[in-house]
Amino acid sequence: MVEPANTVGIPVNHMPQLKDELDIVIPTIRNLDFLEMWRPFLQPYHLIIVQDGDPSKTIAVPEGFDYELYNRNDINRILGPKASCISFKDSACRCFGYMVSKKKYIFTIDDDCFVAKDPSGKAVNALEQHIKNLLCPSSPFFFNTLYDPYREGADFVRGYPFSLREGVSTAVSHGLWLNIPDYDAPTQLVKPKERNTRYVDAVMTIPKGTLFPMCGMNLAFDRELIGPAMYFGLMGDGQPIGRYDDMWAGWCVKVICDHLGLGVKTGLPYIYHSKASNPFVNLKKEYKGIFWQEDIIPFFQSAKLSKEAVTVQQCYMELSKMVKEKLSVIDPYFDKLADAMVTWIEAWDELNPPTKA
Amino acid sequence: MVEPANTVGIPVNHMPQLKDELDIVIPTIRNLDFLEMWRPFLQPYHLIIVQDGDPSKTIAVPEGFDYELYNRNDINRILGPKASCISFKDSACRCFGYMVSKKKYIFTIDDDCFVAKDPSGKAVNALEQHIKNLLCPSSPFFFNTLYDPYREGADFVRGYPFSLREGVSTAVSHGLWLNIPDYDAPTQLVKPKERNTRYVDAVMTIPKGTLFPMCGMNLAFDRELIGPAMYFGLMGDGQPIGRYDDMWAGWCVKVICDHLGLGVKTGLPYIYHSKASNPFVNLKKEYKGIFWQEDIIPFFQSAKLSKEAVTVQQCYMELSKMVKEKLSVIDPYFDKLADAMVTWIEAWDELNPPTKA
Repeated sequence: MVEPANTVGIPVNHMPQLKDELDIVIPTIRNLDFLEMWRPFLQPYHLIIVQDGDPSKTIAVPEGFDYELYNRNDINRILGPKASCISFKDSACRCFGYMVSKKKYIFTIDDDCFVAKDPSGKAVNALEQHIKNLLCPSSPFFFNTLYDPYREGADFVRGYPFSLREGVSTAVSHGLWLNIPDYDAPTQLVKPKERNTRYVDAVMTIPKGTLFPMCGMNLAFDRELIGPAMYFGLMGDGQPIGRYDDMWAGWCVKVICDHLGLGVKTGLPYIYHSKASNPFVNLKKEYKGIFWQEDIIPFFQSAKLSKEAVTVQQCYMELSKMVKEKLSVIDPYFDKLADAMVTWIEAWDELNPPTKA
Repeated sequence: MVEPANTVGIPVNHMPQLKDELDIVIPTIRNLDFLEMWRPFLQPYHLIIVQDGDPSKTIAVPEGFDYELYNRNDINRILGPKASCISFKDSACRCFGYMVSKKKYIFTIDDDCFVAKDPSGKAVNALEQHIKNLLCPSSPFFFNTLYDPYREGADFVRGYPFSLREGVSTAVSHGLWLNIPDYDAPTQLVKPKERNTRYVDAVMTIPKGTLFPMCGMNLAFDRELIGPAMYFGLMGDGQPIGRYDDMWAGWCVKVICDHLGLGVKTGLPYIYHSKASNPFVNLKKEYKGIFWQEDIIPFFQSAKLSKEAVTVQQCYMELSKMVKEKLSVIDPYFDKLADAMVTWIEAWDELNPPTKA
């Protein structure tokens, strides 16, 4: 049986890496008791909490954590009319936290994620592993059969071109989940009792040209390298679709990383995902996405950005045009989404004015 | 410390899967004592032993194994002038075994590979895992973050297109190595003491469009699907290069699998690789390959086969033409290799005449 780790008794980490260069973004509708378990690992860092429901409700944060909290009123006040690009009543609103952060790195985690144990029974410091992943290069141009060649005890295998061994900067670190796997509603319905108990001790680069389903539950990234592409779209209240926020971001991010020569890693760290969401509710949110993704994925697989697009913003604006041109035929929703992508970039640039060289 | 498993006391498997549909191909220059350790797992199967050195030497095979053995004289007798395509004094000669086999599946293993232990201490039945890999589909068109979705306890994650979940036939199963990793000579020289102790409990599909360094030490494949592309090139005696036999095959195989919509899996099973080859000898064999691969890999990355190429043979003949056209500028060796590729296909078709529909 898989159980979350008991972190009681682990002293708070007083030598935290990147303490002043990383924000933790948490979207939530409830009290953040789950942070108690994370205290030894996360307390030294600054939290950005984005409240995704009724702004009149008060969210309790355990003592000792340093945080700022934004509810819908704050988002409207800060962004004005541009607040329309931030989803309401959906954890997609977390991307507002990416925008208001002033740090180089972001770690985002859901409030139903607990500390996992590795096979030796040791509590996994997820953030520490994400930082490792982000600070060492990726190898997207050729596959290394012994997984991450930069990890201790591993290297590039025979036949790996030497010219590619320097690697590229890592923009994204995608972590995984023990216990409740991140399944769609149909799979949840068919396999209600399936639990992920397999701890795969690997980190790997997702090859260039290959898309992947990016889950926002346990995710870290380099804001400076890829931040403006981490838009979680229009989901939840008033939208025809949900549970595709992170997928949307993942498709855009991967196409842009491939274009700009940046790396995306997946694998370690695991978190312990405590509770399955309701598959019937999920099905209602997802069912349009289940159809639409059959067209959206080929769209992203064939999307080619121009040579002129050399910043993430420029890439993202090109993508928004392509979405309008090619995906609006699926549903008028994509027309609205393409506009929101533009608004998102405008809002990003407003809050993050380019520094002069 | 990593130690090979002790298989003494494990009864010989009397319900072996695919017993009459799989041959085990072993290239060797010495007595096959290493088979003792594999007896519980491999004894039920037929062996094809390809003797890669002096044909006057006698190779001893442990009692109870069913085998056929080919030395250079046999290869010359069977292939006549076409024997020129089979390497001499190099384990690349193993591909002759693929050609003379009449079975659907091949497992090939080096004679310095022993039975590995999984983290629980259990002996790993490598062949059983290869068979599992080959008999279940691959998913090359989209990345599944929980690794092989067809494995027990796993599935496709949220956001994986449903239209792609049927997968494609698996043509190749590439296994890994504990203890001595498969490093090139420069890495061996720099890290003489590095041992692979990380058991990664995963099997995954190498995405379409991504090349990988295929190692021939612990490899299985479906002869009917990909056999004619498993040519290990011209290495060893009289050739300017060695230790690129399996790499060459891997590049060709991957390009052809991508073109034909076939899958390549890597990961489990592990074998225990007992002894590092001499890095100085290896450097001498490899050094031209280390230069050449910098051009060869971009060549294979951009190689496009025509729509008319619908069989492995047709694909391979197209590749041989491209090799002649585009790689001969690197070294006259590639001109010779391109000719040998044609000879190989002719010899393959001679020994494996197409069955009439």
